[in-house]
Amino acid sequence: MSSFDPRAYAPEHFLWRFEDGVATVTLNRPERKNPLTFESYAELRGVFRGLVYAEAVKAVVVTGAGGNFSSGGDVHEIIGPLTEMDMPGLLAFTRMTGDLVKAMRVCPQPVIAALDGVCVGAGAIMAMASDLRLATPRTKTAFLFTRVGLAGCDMGACAILPRIIGQGRASELLFTGRVMTAEEGERWGFHNRLVEPDALEQAADTLARELVAGPTFAHGITKTQLNHEWNVSLDTAIEMEAQAQAICMRTQDFRRAFEAFAAKRAPVFEGN
Amino acid sequence: MSSFDPRAYAPEHFLWRFEDGVATVTLNRPERKNPLTFESYAELRGVFRGLVYAEAVKAVVVTGAGGNFSSGGDVHEIIGPLTEMDMPGLLAFTRMTGDLVKAMRVCPQPVIAALDGVCVGAGAIMAMASDLRLATPRTKTAFLFTRVGLAGCDMGACAILPRIIGQGRASELLFTGRVMTAEEGERWGFHNRLVEPDALEQAADTLARELVAGPTFAHGITKTQLNHEWNVSLDTAIEMEAQAQAICMRTQDFRRAFEAFAAKRAPVFEGN
Amino acid sequence: MSSFDPRAYAPEHFLWRFEDGVATVTLNRPERKNPLTFESYAELRGVFRGLVYAEAVKAVVVTGAGGNFSSGGDVHEIIGPLTEMDMPGLLAFTRMTGDLVKAMRVCPQPVIAALDGVCVGAGAIMAMASDLRLATPRTKTAFLFTRVGLAGCDMGACAILPRIIGQGRASELLFTGRVMTAEEGERWGFHNRLVEPDALEQAADTLARELVAGPTFAHGITKTQLNHEWNVSLDTAIEMEAQAQAICMRTQDFRRAFEAFAAKRAPVFEGN
Repeated sequence: MSSFDPRAYAPEHFLWRFEDGVATVTLNRPERKNPLTFESYAELRGVFRGLVYAEAVKAVVVTGAGGNFSSGGDVHEIIGPLTEMDMPGLLAFTRMTGDLVKAMRVCPQPVIAALDGVCVGAGAIMAMASDLRLATPRTKTAFLFTRVGLAGCDMGACAILPRIIGQGRASELLFTGRVMTAEEGERWGFHNRLVEPDALEQAADTLARELVAGPTFAHGITKTQLNHEWNVSLDTAIEMEAQAQAICMRTQDFRRAFEAFAAKRAPVFEGN
Repeated sequence: MSSFDPRAYAPEHFLWRFEDGVATVTLNRPERKNPLTFESYAELRGVFRGLVYAEAVKAVVVTGAGGNFSSGGDVHEIIGPLTEMDMPGLLAFTRMTGDLVKAMRVCPQPVIAALDGVCVGAGAIMAMASDLRLATPRTKTAFLFTRVGLAGCDMGACAILPRIIGQGRASELLFTGRVMTAEEGERWGFHNRLVEPDALEQAADTLARELVAGPTFAHGITKTQLNHEWNVSLDTAIEMEAQAQAICMRTQDFRRAFEAFAAKRAPVFEGN
Repeated sequence: MSSFDPRAYAPEHFLWRFEDGVATVTLNRPERKNPLTFESYAELRGVFRGLVYAEAVKAVVVTGAGGNFSSGGDVHEIIGPLTEMDMPGLLAFTRMTGDLVKAMRVCPQPVIAALDGVCVGAGAIMAMASDLRLATPRTKTAFLFTRVGLAGCDMGACAILPRIIGQGRASELLFTGRVMTAEEGERWGFHNRLVEPDALEQAADTLARELVAGPTFAHGITKTQLNHEWNVSLDTAIEMEAQAQAICMRTQDFRRAFEAFAAKRAPVFEGN
C-alpha cells in the first residue's frame, strides 16, 4: 500500500469518502449494527497502514451507518470459528486485531471517532484507539469481552483505557463488561463532547476540518509523541520533545504563523 | 500456604467468611476503627499470598466492622515502635507493608473494597490497592502519612494513586494528607459507586457474585495485564494482550459462551 | 548557584518575595500579560535549579501580576528569532525551555501555581509543571502551540498533561489548542480548586504555609517519588517506596509527630 491513493481507494467492507483532506471510514452493515469480520478487520488494518503514505489525507473520521457505531466482532463469523482454531491460528487473529489498533495509533493523521448508539467489543476498542471521540446522548460503550468468556485485555485495552479514564473506572468496565453511558463517558474523559445524533456527522467533520486547517505535519508529531512518551522517564520525555519541537520549528508552517501574526492576519498552514 | 484451604482458614486478626466463591475479609477492631498492627499486616499479606493457590476463591471483598473501614497503622502499636527501630528493621517493616499491596495485586481474584466511614493511612492504601471500590456518602479517605511526619510515598501510593485519580489530585492528597470526601472520590474515579451504609455489604457481595459468575480464569488474566502493562510501550502492550487473549480463547468458558449464544441461553462459566 | 540565598536574591525578569519559608515568583510584565523571553526563561530555570540548595525555602508559589498568569513565549521576542535560527540553535532553545520544566520538577519544594486570567503556551506549561494549581473562574488555559504551527509536544506536555487530565482530554487540548475553561480544569483534575480572583493570592499563600508547617524533608521525598515512579513496574515502585519511606522514618519529624501524639498536642515539624 505504499502507493495508497485516497481518491481511488474503494474498500470492500466499509464505506470510504475523501474530501478536502478528510477521509471518512463508515462501518456499513447497519442491519447488524456494523459488526466486524475477519475480512473487515484486515481491510481496516490495511487502510490505516496505508494512511502513513497518504499525504493528501490530513485527518480521519471513523463512524458507523444507521445510528450505531459497531457491535464488534460478529458472533457467528468470528467467535464461532475462533472456538475451533488452534493456538497458532488464535495468535494470528489476536495479533491481526492488535495490528489494527497499532495502525490507528501509528498513522500520523488524528483519528476522530463519531460514535452513536451501540459501541461495543471491538467497536469500543476502535473508539478507544482513536485520538478524539464525539458521541451522542444515546451512545452505549461496553468492553464486553468478559461476556463471551474472555479477558478484558483485548487489543491494548488494559494499557490504553486506564490512561483515558483512570485505572479504577477501567477496571470496572473491563471486569464487568458493563455499559458506560454517554454521560459517564463525557464525565470520565472518554468522550470529548456529546452532540445530538443528527448533529454528529457535521460535528465530526467540522472538527476534522479544523485539524486539517492546522499545521498537519506538527499534528503528526504530536500524535507520535503521545504514543511514545507513555513509558519513558520525565527527563527522557522532555528531551524527546526538545528534539521533536525543534524539528517542527524548521517547518514552513511555523514561519507562516509568525509572518501571519506580524501582518495581523490568520495563518494559512500547508502541512510542511 | 500452598495448601491454603478457604473453608478451614481461621485468621487471628480479622474475620474471614467464605461462601459461594466469595471470600470476605473484615477488619474487626471496631472500638478502635479497625487499626492495623504488625501482626495484622503480616497476616493480611499471608492471606492474599495464599489466595494465589486458593482456586475455590473467585473474588474477595475487604471491609471493616462497625461503620468504619480502617484507621490505618496503630499509633501506639506501630508508630511508637518504629521510632525506636534501626534501618534494617525499618526497611523490613516498609517492605512487609509493601508486600501486602503486592499480594493484593498479584492474587488473581478481583478485590472489591467496601468502604464506610474512616478509610485512612494504611486503610486508604488497602482501598487503593483493591480492584474496585464501593463507598458510602460518609466515607472519608485520607493518605495522612504527612500528618505523622512521613512522605506520601507509602506502599506504592505515588505510583498507583495518580493512575486512579490523576497526578494533580494525587499530589494534593499526598502532600496535604487532607480528606477526600466520598463525593470527590466518586467524581475523581476512586470510588466506583456510592451506596447507602446499610446497603454496602449487600452491594459488595452482589458485585462479587457477579464476578464469580463470570469467566474467572479470564478475570485473573485481566488483572495480570492491568498490573503489567503500566510501564511498557504501546506495541509491547498490544503483543502482550494478543498472547494473553489467545490463551483465554483456548478456555472452555469461551466455548461455553459461544454455545450458549448459539442456543439463545445465558452462558454458565466455570473458570476454566 | 550553589550558594543561592533566598533573602538576597534579586532577579531581573520577575518579582521575588521570600517570607516564612515561602518563596513567591511573580511574572511581572502585566501590560503584555506576562510573556516569557529568552532571558526570563533562563532566569526562571536558574532559580528553580538554585532552589535545590536553598534549604530555607520550603514551598514555592508561582503567579502573575495584573490579573493574568502568562501569555507564554513572546511572539516578537521569541518566535520571530526562532524562525531565523539553525537547528543547533533551535535545539538549544527547546532544551533550555525543557530544562525549566525539569528544574521545577527536580527542586524538592512543592510548587503551587496561582493562576488567574490568561494562562497559555509556556504559561500553561509552567502551570502543568507545578505540583498544585489554584485558579479563578476566569482562568483560561491553552496549550496553543498548534496555533503557531508547532506540535503539542512542548516541554513535556505529551507526557505530563495526560497524567493529569487523561489521554483523551489532553489529546484534544494539544491537537486543537483550544481553551480549557476554569470549570473544565477543576472538573478534569488540572486545577485543584477555584477561588475568586481577589482571594487567589491569599489562598496560595495559605496552602504554601500549610505545606511549610508540614514535614518538608518528607515533602521533598514525596515529590521525588511522584517524578520517578511514572515508568517503573509496580514491584519496583513498591520497593522504591519501601526504601524512601524508611529514610523518612529516621527523621526527627517522624519522632516529633509520635511524641506530639502521645502528649495529645499538635506536632511541630522542622523539616529534618
